[in-house]
Amino acid sequence: MSTSIPAGLQLQSLVKPEGQLEISLATVPTPQPAADEVVVRIEASPLNPSDIGLLFGAADIATAKLSGAATHPVVTMQIPPAAMKGMAGRVGQPMPVGNEGAGVVVAAGDSEAARVLLGKTVAILGGAMYAQYRVMKAEQCLLLPDGTKPAEGASCFVNPLTALGMVETMRRDGHKALVHTAAASNLGQMLNRICIKDGVGLVNIVRKPEQAQLLKSQGATHVCVTSAPSFIQDLTQALGATGATLAFDATGGGKLAGQILTCMEAALNSTAKEYSRYGSATHKQVYIYGGLDTGPTEFNRSFGMAWGMGGWLLFNFLQRIGPQAAQALRQRVVAELKTTFASHYSKEISLVQALQPEEIAVYGQRATGTKYLINPNKGGGG
Amino acid sequence: MSTSIPAGLQLQSLVKPEGQLEISLATVPTPQPAADEVVVRIEASPLNPSDIGLLFGAADIATAKLSGAATHPVVTMQIPPAAMKGMAGRVGQPMPVGNEGAGVVVAAGDSEAARVLLGKTVAILGGAMYAQYRVMKAEQCLLLPDGTKPAEGASCFVNPLTALGMVETMRRDGHKALVHTAAASNLGQMLNRICIKDGVGLVNIVRKPEQAQLLKSQGATHVCVTSAPSFIQDLTQALGATGATLAFDATGGGKLAGQILTCMEAALNSTAKEYSRYGSATHKQVYIYGGLDTGPTEFNRSFGMAWGMGGWLLFNFLQRIGPQAAQALRQRVVAELKTTFASHYSKEISLVQALQPEEIAVYGQRATGTKYLINPNKGGGG
Repeated sequence: MSTSIPAGLQLQSLVKPEGQLEISLATVPTPQPAADEVVVRIEASPLNPSDIGLLFGAADIATAKLSGAATHPVVTMQIPPAAMKGMAGRVGQPMPVGNEGAGVVVAAGDSEAARVLLGKTVAILGGAMYAQYRVMKAEQCLLLPDGTKPAEGASCFVNPLTALGMVETMRRDGHKALVHTAAASNLGQMLNRICIKDGVGLVNIVRKPEQAQLLKSQGATHVCVTSAPSFIQDLTQALGATGATLAFDATGGGKLAGQILTCMEAALNSTAKEYSRYGSATHKQVYIYGGLDTGPTEFNRSFGMAWGMGGWLLFNFLQRIGPQAAQALRQRVVAELKTTFASHYSKEISLVQALQPEEIAVYGQRATGTKYLINPNKGGGG
Repeated sequence: MSTSIPAGLQLQSLVKPEGQLEISLATVPTPQPAADEVVVRIEASPLNPSDIGLLFGAADIATAKLSGAATHPVVTMQIPPAAMKGMAGRVGQPMPVGNEGAGVVVAAGDSEAARVLLGKTVAILGGAMYAQYRVMKAEQCLLLPDGTKPAEGASCFVNPLTALGMVETMRRDGHKALVHTAAASNLGQMLNRICIKDGVGLVNIVRKPEQAQLLKSQGATHVCVTSAPSFIQDLTQALGATGATLAFDATGGGKLAGQILTCMEAALNSTAKEYSRYGSATHKQVYIYGGLDTGPTEFNRSFGMAWGMGGWLLFNFLQRIGPQAAQALRQRVVAELKTTFASHYSKEISLVQALQPEEIAVYGQRATGTKYLINPNKGGGG
């Protein structure tokens, strides 16, 4: 049942011991799929913030310089010397990039499970998606409904499962509403749609008034703008109104995580009957799941003793809930792929374009509204 | 069976709306004990850091001024204006102080449980211990073995149960060794004795070489000194040797909590087989249980995604483990009161002495080796 598949291009990111990061396109052979495997021709893979973290590491994208042939470009950037320590584990290992993507199954192993996928459009998760071909276990492919384009299924996992994971974490840990920062992102808009649909209270935090407008135009009730002079009061009021004691923070650095805890405590104490110097006994939690602000995290512990801060990672969450619960979340994503879980991209680019400094300058910002989609087989490259 | 008990002195701390903190001795009536209650004549109550927090609030002890009669002194301090917001809940409410103490039962209600305690020395927990008399439920009294002096039983709860709670938290949360900061404190020395006795790995962190000497003279294996140039390496090495992934931090402010997580991650990664940009999958946790450094907490998130930081409070821990497990811990304290759980005080003072600025200047530092014991009935005051 299997077909011979040509070698394909794969984007690789390499940290050199001299302190440079080099991104290039390697030609890698496509292995024959084993009985339970398929070969997917990747036609759409998003540039998520988590991908950009691996793609550029600690390199300064403003130093990007292009070399190499037009069809096999190489882009090189400088890594600040202080940041090289954190990159030590990567030195000398070319790393494929791209957590998730979608494409068409062009070859399959001999098993029934693999063969039924031939010619179908599937979504897959697992790294190395910025490549023309990706071999995958058939059981790990998420079969998309007939008529779904790869671009529509490119972001089936990271953002949808993260957003669903936030709501699921809230339920399992006994909180009743949520706070989300950088809330105008693709992920944030998705979370807003889930919360509206499921009737979950959500306090959105954004930096700018226009981001607040965007979310309000999508039905958001509570949007607090950090640049507003009334931010702390607005946030405390929204926390009181929703009863949110759990936050997911994409920024990481700065004072925001601590401010959220402080405002949660103030909202809880506004209805307290007597003074306790240990603060409210209600547990308040902030999970940091991103690092848009790479500076240090700072807080004043002005929120009593019942508080927690910590990292939150999708993979760890999925392990916590187990395969059955994870599968239920994936099924919901497929069922609502064109509504709740629709993603928007400002541009579709090829692998060669992904290495151009002028494109990197745009998508490397990780700003709202500059999300790109890579099509590794654009322009007949496959 | 009950005896009429005279009124007694009680220390009270009051925040005034004008921004002063006033500590005075009020004469309060001693209620007749109910059937299931006893009256304890308090003869020993420690000045724990947690007591000092309530006693002085955010006031500046350097501004302490004495007034009032010699037998009923009043000490007044200034609260910095910026700190008054955090004191809002206390304004106008005179608060009794003193979490724990020991003394002799001088009156009892009619129940059997109360009457058997008459004349006995007991340890009690529950606030308002800086007072000549304290009414208490008989079932909440910890009966001390015959021949135990109140001074020996004064600290049966806060430090012993906190130290045992740290080890118990470690076991329940699946960690295999501990880190402790400000480790030369009374509490730290106690924890060191528990860990030696129970065979638990312990990494002690202290500020000064002489504190390290003290702990080593008491059998500590791992002591890291923050002022040493090799601190980060020393800590990483000790974490690797013990496998500690849980820390209890008494300092709270500054960079120490984050440094501990960073060194834990470095110790874990030193044996890792492949690079993961999400860091080690092993959960690393720091609980902040004190605030010796009142400045902001700051960290760089250079420890992957599997981490947590949070508050730890003895009362919440005891609720978590339930009454049976808590009782087992208390029984261990009584059994090892003169060995593992022995406390040391640099001075015993009366209530009147506790209000003298020159004494406050010493015990208010909360420094190692300046721990005081209050005897509210010293000098025949009862």
